[in-house]
Amino acid sequence: MIGAAGENVPADARIEAAMRRALQASAQVHGITSPNPPVGCVVLDAAGEVVGAGATAPPGGPHAEIVALRQAGDRAAGGTAVVTLEPCSHFGRTPPCTDALIAAGITTVHVALPDPNPIASGGATVLRDAGVAVTVGTLAGEVARGPLRAWLHAVRTARPHVTWKLAASLDGRSAAADGTSRWITGPDARAQVHALRATADAIVVGTGTALADDPALTARNADGTAWAHQPLRVVVGHRDLPAGSKLDAPDVLHVRSHDPDTVLAVLRERGVVDVLLEGGPRLAGAFLAAGRVDRVLAYLAPALLGAGPAALADAGVGTIGDIRRLHVDTVCRVGTDVLIDARPGAELLEKGTQ
Amino acid sequence: MIGAAGENVPADARIEAAMRRALQASAQVHGITSPNPPVGCVVLDAAGEVVGAGATAPPGGPHAEIVALRQAGDRAAGGTAVVTLEPCSHFGRTPPCTDALIAAGITTVHVALPDPNPIASGGATVLRDAGVAVTVGTLAGEVARGPLRAWLHAVRTARPHVTWKLAASLDGRSAAADGTSRWITGPDARAQVHALRATADAIVVGTGTALADDPALTARNADGTAWAHQPLRVVVGHRDLPAGSKLDAPDVLHVRSHDPDTVLAVLRERGVVDVLLEGGPRLAGAFLAAGRVDRVLAYLAPALLGAGPAALADAGVGTIGDIRRLHVDTVCRVGTDVLIDARPGAELLEKGTQ
Repeated sequence: MIGAAGENVPADARIEAAMRRALQASAQVHGITSPNPPVGCVVLDAAGEVVGAGATAPPGGPHAEIVALRQAGDRAAGGTAVVTLEPCSHFGRTPPCTDALIAAGITTVHVALPDPNPIASGGATVLRDAGVAVTVGTLAGEVARGPLRAWLHAVRTARPHVTWKLAASLDGRSAAADGTSRWITGPDARAQVHALRATADAIVVGTGTALADDPALTARNADGTAWAHQPLRVVVGHRDLPAGSKLDAPDVLHVRSHDPDTVLAVLRERGVVDVLLEGGPRLAGAFLAAGRVDRVLAYLAPALLGAGPAALADAGVGTIGDIRRLHVDTVCRVGTDVLIDARPGAELLEKGTQ
Repeated sequence: MIGAAGENVPADARIEAAMRRALQASAQVHGITSPNPPVGCVVLDAAGEVVGAGATAPPGGPHAEIVALRQAGDRAAGGTAVVTLEPCSHFGRTPPCTDALIAAGITTVHVALPDPNPIASGGATVLRDAGVAVTVGTLAGEVARGPLRAWLHAVRTARPHVTWKLAASLDGRSAAADGTSRWITGPDARAQVHALRATADAIVVGTGTALADDPALTARNADGTAWAHQPLRVVVGHRDLPAGSKLDAPDVLHVRSHDPDTVLAVLRERGVVDVLLEGGPRLAGAFLAAGRVDRVLAYLAPALLGAGPAALADAGVGTIGDIRRLHVDTVCRVGTDVLIDARPGAELLEKGTQ
């Protein structure tokens, strides 16, 4: 931990506003920085005015602090840096950000989250040793749930972060009895999923879904145009895809295993931090059973099917006591649909009457 | 329609507050008035102070207006009545409420909803003919979604109103693979369902659910004590229930049919207005396929099963184009669970990309 609690949390609304702006800046690079974290930084001049804002460039490019400092130029002297993650103090592909902050004459740094990476941490100490005031904790919760979430998870667990996205009817089905599924959810939910793909490093589906739906798994706008960033497309399973199917392409990774940890190890080697698991039901069940789903995004259409394939197959639950409970982070409406954003984490239920 | 729009809608916040109080009063008798409507009434004196509030008594007892007028006594003279439904002008089991309002010296009546019942309507006209100012429309939407909802539906369609309540995991299952289901949803959701039972005229389940779960279908508090009002318990289907099962009781109605309209006709003959359909999946499917579900209350637990019986079986949907779309009225969290309150009503979805 850096510093003691209490002294570290600035109550200054101006700093919080700057942190929100840094968070927004980081959201714009979410998906293009891996294996580096998508960090955002805002620089205020000595009078407290925003004079620079930036976010991590793709690997090899400058970190967020450098982008923001360049924008600020001389006005950074005597100023404040507000950054979502503790500045690095080590030489990686780029020189330490701590050096740049000190050289620019920054006198105060407000950080949301300490760097959990042992190689990079210690930035706050380096800054303090150079006479820079440092606080840690501004909007820490908000920032931890933001674009840094997957990266923080990957540093802590040495595994990519897995978001399982499902789209289903209110009765939990992902297609009608005859296999048709376009569309269960509405255009707003589908647009949101495409935006989500653009923030992921990899999209994973099983061969069953690839064979049944022949999805493109690209991030596209409603008019069909592609987003600038496209995630790695990954098909998992033993079956071959027929020539001419959309995922039978040189840039698609085919992992011939059903074991989630094997899949995740292969992805990690490729620098993947943030995985979007899009099905099918058996693959999702395998990931859940293995404890390898870190976030569930359930897009539920207010519609009923009564027949057809379930969104989730065997997840290793045989009896009610083994039900896999989730903690709900948010519930919101997306167009006509309902989005439940949840994560594993049992909330114990009291026994009661019925 | 009674009167012209515009002149009828009072902007007076005081009247709206009184209408909300009348609505609350009606909620307290929701479940005990059928086949009469659960109406609420508030009486203000000439100075605008609340001097009476009441709601419909059980059949044969006084209507809401009479209860509120008795409480107001002489202070009603020159005052205002605020009532959720247009006062009746006919002799039923009790004399017309219009007469009582006129006799009490009420000079203004604010009504939320006109009475759709041809026998009872015309109350506003009778009042106006007697020199009483009448407006219609105060909080009309709110009142229509409140305790009067089922009764309004029954008057308009000549069928009881059917609420299908389901409790399921996020993947749409109502039990685990081995049939165990206690508990999927949490104590708050279960308590809410018991309160819901206490407002219903009848609770309906299929013989499959009765045989599998042996439910009591009573409205109870968390400590097991019974609510004052208990709905009629109804089992639907051809199979007999074994002696000693909780629903093998003289006060349980066994309808030996799977046809929703047959079931609803039997219930209507018994004065049932408000039906709570609690499953199982096949019976719910039959009601949905027949277009006889008027409201869906989906209690979704943030939990995953991956196997086990679905909350809904065949509802006559074979292909995605026939999916039964719902309109979502509200989404809210109930304890750890999510409640989606919806009603049939297609919202057309645009075609889009995936």
